Formats: sequence, C-alpha cells, structure tokens
Amino acid sequence: MTADVYWLSGSPFAWCVLLLLEIKKADYNPILLSESDGDTKTSEFLALAPRRRTPVLRDGDMVLWESVAILAYLDQKFPEPPLFGRNPEETGHIWRVILECVCYLEAFSEAIVDGVFDRRVNMSEAQFREAAAKVHAEFQNFENQLSEHDWLAGDTISAADLVVYPFTEIFLRACAREPAASLDLGFLPLDKHHPAIAAWHERIRAIEGYDKTYPPHWREAA
Amino acid sequence: MTADVYWLSGSPFAWCVLLLLEIKKADYNPILLSESDGDTKTSEFLALAPRRRTPVLRDGDMVLWESVAILAYLDQKFPEPPLFGRNPEETGHIWRVILECVCYLEAFSEAIVDGVFDRRVNMSEAQFREAAAKVHAEFQNFENQLSEHDWLAGDTISAADLVVYPFTEIFLRACAREPAASLDLGFLPLDKHHPAIAAWHERIRAIEGYDKTYPPHWREAA
Repeated sequence: MTADVYWLSGSPFAWCVLLLLEIKKADYNPILLSESDGDTKTSEFLALAPRRRTPVLRDGDMVLWESVAILAYLDQKFPEPPLFGRNPEETGHIWRVILECVCYLEAFSEAIVDGVFDRRVNMSEAQFREAAAKVHAEFQNFENQLSEHDWLAGDTISAADLVVYPFTEIFLRACAREPAASLDLGFLPLDKHHPAIAAWHERIRAIEGYDKTYPPHWREAA
Repeated sequence: MTADVYWLSGSPFAWCVLLLLEIKKADYNPILLSESDGDTKTSEFLALAPRRRTPVLRDGDMVLWESVAILAYLDQKFPEPPLFGRNPEETGHIWRVILECVCYLEAFSEAIVDGVFDRRVNMSEAQFREAAAKVHAEFQNFENQLSEHDWLAGDTISAADLVVYPFTEIFLRACAREPAASLDLGFLPLDKHHPAIAAWHERIRAIEGYDKTYPPHWREAA
C-alpha cells in the first residue's frame, strides 16, 4: 500500500519528509493542501491531524504526525540508505543536530520568517537584529561543521540534513524580502557569508527527486 | 568504561536520562552540578557543553548533549529493554509523543514554571490562566491515553514516558507554589483532576532506582 503524505507548499516540516521519501526511493502519494483554500480547517483533516498541522502520514491504519517522528518511522520502514546512523555514536550525533534545530534554529529563524511573511507581526529593527544574531550563531555552527564534513552529522547524508535544510532555505527567502532585505542581516549572498553552507545547499539540490519536493508556490513566484 | 552524566538537580532534561540508565540497569557515574556554585559557568564545562546546558554525557571519546539525543544513543548502547519501540509503528508513536512534548508541553509548562520560580518574571493572572489552558489540553491528551493504556505510547514503558514525566512533576510543583497555588489552575490534587496521570506517576515512581533520579534539593526542601 502506498502511503499518503499530506503537505503544505513551503512547510519546512513537510519538506524534510518528502526529501526522505525521495532519498529512500519509496512510493508515496503526496496530497498537497492549501491553507488559503481552508484544506487544513476541514473536519476530515482534523480527524487525521488533531493539531491541524502538516505533515501527516497515513500508511494503512497508521496515521502519524510530527515530522521528525514520521522520519523515524519511515527510516525503519525503508531501511536503505539508513538516515539515522549505523551505530550508537552516529545515531546520537544525528539526533543531537535534529534536536538543536528543533529547540534553537527553528525558534530563532521563525521570528524573522514571521516578521517578514506574517502581516500581523510588526517587528522593530532591533528585534530583527536580535533574532538575526541568534540565527548567526546557529549558521556558524553549521558552517564550521560543513567546512570539515560534507554533511551536518558526518560524511554521509542523514536525517539531520533533511530537518535543517528547509529551515535554512525559508529563512534565507525571508532575508531577501522587505523589511529584512534593507536591514542587510548578514546572510545574503549565502556563498559570500557561509560558503560551506552554500556548497551543502548544492549537494541537497542534487538529490534525485529534489524537484518534486521544491515548494510549488516558490516556483510560481519566481 | 563507565559513562559520566553531568546533571542538575530538578532539570527535566537530565532527569529522563537518569531514569533511562536506571531502567537499563547500566553503570554510570552521575556528576551533580550546582548552578548556584557556578559549575555550569566554568571553562571546563563550556568545553564539554557549548550551550552550557545539562545533561551532558561523556562516554569515552563520545561527548553528547541534548537529552533526547542522549536517550537515543543510550538505547542503542544498552538495547534491553528497548525504549524506542520494536517496530516502525511503535517507534513512530514514541517519537510523536516525544516531539509533542518538546514542541508543546515543554513550552507551555515552562511559562508557568518560570512565572513561579524565576523572580525576574512577573506574570499576570490572565497570563497564568492562558498558559494553564494550553497545559490542560496536553494533560487531557495524556489522561485520555493513560485511561486506555498503562504508558504514554502503548502498553509498555518507552522513552516517551521518561521525557514527559519530569515536565509534569516540575509543572505540578510550580502549581503548588504561590502565586500559582492561590489561582487554583485546576491541576491539584492530581488524582482528582487527572486520575490516570496520577496512577501513571505511581508506576514511574515504582521503577527500581527511581530514588537515585529524584531531585536531591526537592528532598531537602520537603
């Protein structure tokens, strides 16, 4: 049976799940929802996803939400290539990077993404710069790691890369838009400020099937 | 070689790691740090823990932080009993509960814990009640699950129980203190409001070695 994956265009949470499925070369049925069309407000969607958030995976009788939990589930369903490590040390390292993303990068970058894309949020320049300083520290950690290794948790791609990558793309997209763009928060152009992260982005984009995971509304906007 | 575990009394992040080690009956060397003595501000600790947070595990050459990553590492080092599931469905379910704790319960309960224990925070009654409503929704999810199953992710104990339990204990401790106590936020006594959670607490407390994980400064205060 082919699993259904409910997703939203540009959701970093859904993006990592699609990337994992492409890397595993697994069959899946992507179901693209539209927030503006109210797809996440229907009673059918609420029955699947009590928190009304994407992604949701439906695999036979199994319904699962929380993107990172979906990754852990799919990694066991489709063991090759293993994306959560081959021994305790690799597994611990991968989960450490994932949890640091969930607990730090996600919150810090979200402040700037919301400040740019959410019209209800009115952030001052000082608030933009304060949030940017925190993201800088996280980007510097990634830059240091990626200057010595091809991937965030070592020399092979792992779930850590898939979790972190979408947040960096969405964050940089926000940095290119007003009011962030005029503030020059020190991230763009990426290859000037963080060349190792830029090279890692290219490695991610070279994944076979990457195009199927790229947010459709970004392509339309381009 | 016996692993070192650096911990702080009453840190929910460290508590789950100690519980896992007790359940696994693993040898470990607990190193109790004191924030008031400045133990987390030393250069030695910074070299181990770049974010200056506990817990930190040092196992030979492996130094690992982020409590949930430490759990994943230790579960592979000490496979019995398995605490991250025996098949993809169990693994997905366990990680879903863990991520929901990290992304929801932790943030919501922290607001009230900080409002009670952090003197720099000055929360209004309305803010206490708003945060309490969010924690109520999470507690109700737990109550529903624990009314049908002994443990948070099924019929056997898992890492999900170990991650969630300390946050509930610390939250309830805050509810018993002023200014929260006088507001009667609807959590205490626990066995009246959430009898299934209260019974689950008793099951956790019956774990062999539980006493070694109990925050020492809580015992002194009692």
